[in-house]
Formats: sequence, structure tokens, C-alpha cells
Amino acid sequence: MSYGYNPYAQQGGGAGGNFNEGYSAPPGAYPPQNAQISPEAQRWFSMVDRDRSGKINAEELQRALINGRGENFSDTSCKLMISMFDNDASGTIDVYEFEKLYNYINQWLQVFKTYDRDNSGHIDESELSQAFIQMGFRFSPEFIQFLVKKNDPRNQKEVSVDQFIVVCVQIQRFTEAFRQRDTQQNGIISIGFEDFLTVALGCSI
Amino acid sequence: MSYGYNPYAQQGGGAGGNFNEGYSAPPGAYPPQNAQISPEAQRWFSMVDRDRSGKINAEELQRALINGRGENFSDTSCKLMISMFDNDASGTIDVYEFEKLYNYINQWLQVFKTYDRDNSGHIDESELSQAFIQMGFRFSPEFIQFLVKKNDPRNQKEVSVDQFIVVCVQIQRFTEAFRQRDTQQNGIISIGFEDFLTVALGCSI
Repeated sequence: MSYGYNPYAQQGGGAGGNFNEGYSAPPGAYPPQNAQISPEAQRWFSMVDRDRSGKINAEELQRALINGRGENFSDTSCKLMISMFDNDASGTIDVYEFEKLYNYINQWLQVFKTYDRDNSGHIDESELSQAFIQMGFRFSPEFIQFLVKKNDPRNQKEVSVDQFIVVCVQIQRFTEAFRQRDTQQNGIISIGFEDFLTVALGCSI
Repeated sequence: MSYGYNPYAQQGGGAGGNFNEGYSAPPGAYPPQNAQISPEAQRWFSMVDRDRSGKINAEELQRALINGRGENFSDTSCKLMISMFDNDASGTIDVYEFEKLYNYINQWLQVFKTYDRDNSGHIDESELSQAFIQMGFRFSPEFIQFLVKKNDPRNQKEVSVDQFIVVCVQIQRFTEAFRQRDTQQNGIISIGFEDFLTVALGCSI
């Protein structure tokens, strides 16, 4: 059994979602605070930071991110992404942290686009299965169905880019925890109750 | 090792949180649609259903629920509770589903109050540890610290009633999944990668 994980192994062009181009820019933009911040990330930061606090929270990020269905990214995905780059647990990120997040999101958009072979803006079971195979996972059809159903409980057919990011980050975290305990590398672990709870709760989003 | 789970084993009076009494009632109240709905649940439903759609969603529930710190219940807790009683996956509950939720929340408030021995409106590590012992769990101090830190990442000291509900429901779900696989009842399971992911993702909130 393989569970290697490299979401950036195959990257294409384009995007299955976008920073919201329809969002109107504020009158000015912050002057660059550091030559290392790319002008593009700086420009986006200025637009996303609607209250001009110099910090971006999950709500501001959510307003700026639109998936391939024309919907804002989910609460869960925005909180997850902020938390991944929010080093001081303040619930916000500054422009330096934002640049890393900006690059991270763009990498995911490229990955998603690669798997969205019919350019529908979302991926179906077949495309999701292919995506995981490319990442080194061989999941059963039942597990793929479970993943899609969990993320799309009403329609049970498609996964949008924000849902895709959440699923992949969750699987990445659980896989890492599993791998650490799979000392014989045979895809089966023995795990005690409290350790099981620690992994299950600790890796949950 | 024991992991029996009965959150309602010990119930006290009072509440560590409240439906928001400060919330102003709408001009009228719905006439009872069914004699089986208690007048109290009907009255609360009418107040919580701000847009008078006949359905309550997580946002409406959140506006009505205040924890012992004077804060609205978290997004996560409200979405969790709606989802537990939302049989058609619509994201909303009707008055019949609401009555069950109303009773469920009141039971949790009573349980929480029992463990909040100093009536602070939140429970600390020591009180949380006692709560789990009463529920039949014997967790290590490290695990209790982990639970508190996960729920209160900035202060790492206290758990509010909405956080308590989420933690208990999560542990309840993971315990049930663990127990099903613990065929020898010795507190250790062997689990394969895909089953592990299914449990971890399926029981996550």
C-alpha cells in the first residue's frame, strides 16, 4: 500500500478558483514594507485587508476567495488556511504571512486545475480518484465516494477547490500521524485509545 | 481502561450558558403547530427564527446562544448541533427538530453546570478531568492539557460550555468508532490506513 503524499508533484496552469477579481480595490495600496514581499502579494494584501488594519482574518480572506462555482470559499477552508500561517495564534496574518499563504493558495489552484480535466470548476469522483493516485494514494471507490459525500452531502457528486484543499490537508495530516505509528510500513497500526483520540482530535480541522 | 460514556449520568440545576434572554422577541409567536411541541420550545423557536422562515439555521441559533463568558456560541458548535438534528441535510431545522435540540442543549447546560463547581461559567483542567471521570473516562493529565489547549489555544486554561459540547460529542463519536474495533476490549486496536482515515474524517466535526 502506498500513501506517499506530494500534492505539488504535478502542476498545471490556470486555476479552478480565483482571488475575487470582481472585488473593488481600495483607493490606495500600502507602500511595500519589505523588498522581499512581491508586488503582486502586496497588492492582494491591500485589497483583502478591507479594514486596513494591516492584518487579515478569516472573514476578510473568505470575502476575497471565490471557487469555481462562484461561491465564496467555506468558513472551514479560510480558517484552516489562516491557522496554517498564523504563527502567534491571533486569528490574523500579516503581510509576510500572507505572502506565504498567497503562494500556497496559488499552488493549490494549479494542482486543482490539473485534476479538473473537463474545466468544470469542480472535480468529480473519477477526477478525485485520479488526483489521489497522482499523489501516491490508492483509495477504494467506496472511500472516494465517502470523501465526496462528506464534502457535498446534498448532491454527493462534486468537490470544489476549497473543499479539495480541506480534504487534502486533512488527509495529509492523518497520513503523517499514521505513518509515524506504522513502524512495519505495512499499512496497519496498533493504537491505544488515548493516542487514537489525540491523533483524531489533534489532526481534525 | 474504561471508556464508558454517559454524559447525562450526573445532572445538576442551573446553566453554564443560556439562550440569550437579552434577545428581543418578535412581535408575535407562531401558533402551536402540534400539541406535542412544548410551549417553551415553541416560544424559543419563534424567537430564534428571526426571519420567520419556519426554519432555523446555524447563524440564527448562534445569535440566540450565549456562553458563560458572554460570548455567542462558536460557529462549530452551532453547525454541529444543527447537523445532529437536521435529518434532510438542508442546513436548517424545523420546530419539531428544534424541540429535540432545545432539550439536548438544556441537558448539556445542566451537565456543564454540574462540573463547573466554582460557577465561573467555564471549566478548567481539573474540572474537565473530573467531568470525564464521571463519564467513565480516565485520561492522563497530558491528554486533558491537550484538550484544553486545543480548545483555548491562546489562554490554554478554560473550556466554555459550547467548547465542552463539541469536545464531548467528538470524544463520544471517536470512542464509539474505537469501541467497535476493540474486539478484545483491551483498549488497543489494529487498524488499516483507509479505515483509519474513514474514522478520523467521518467522526470529525
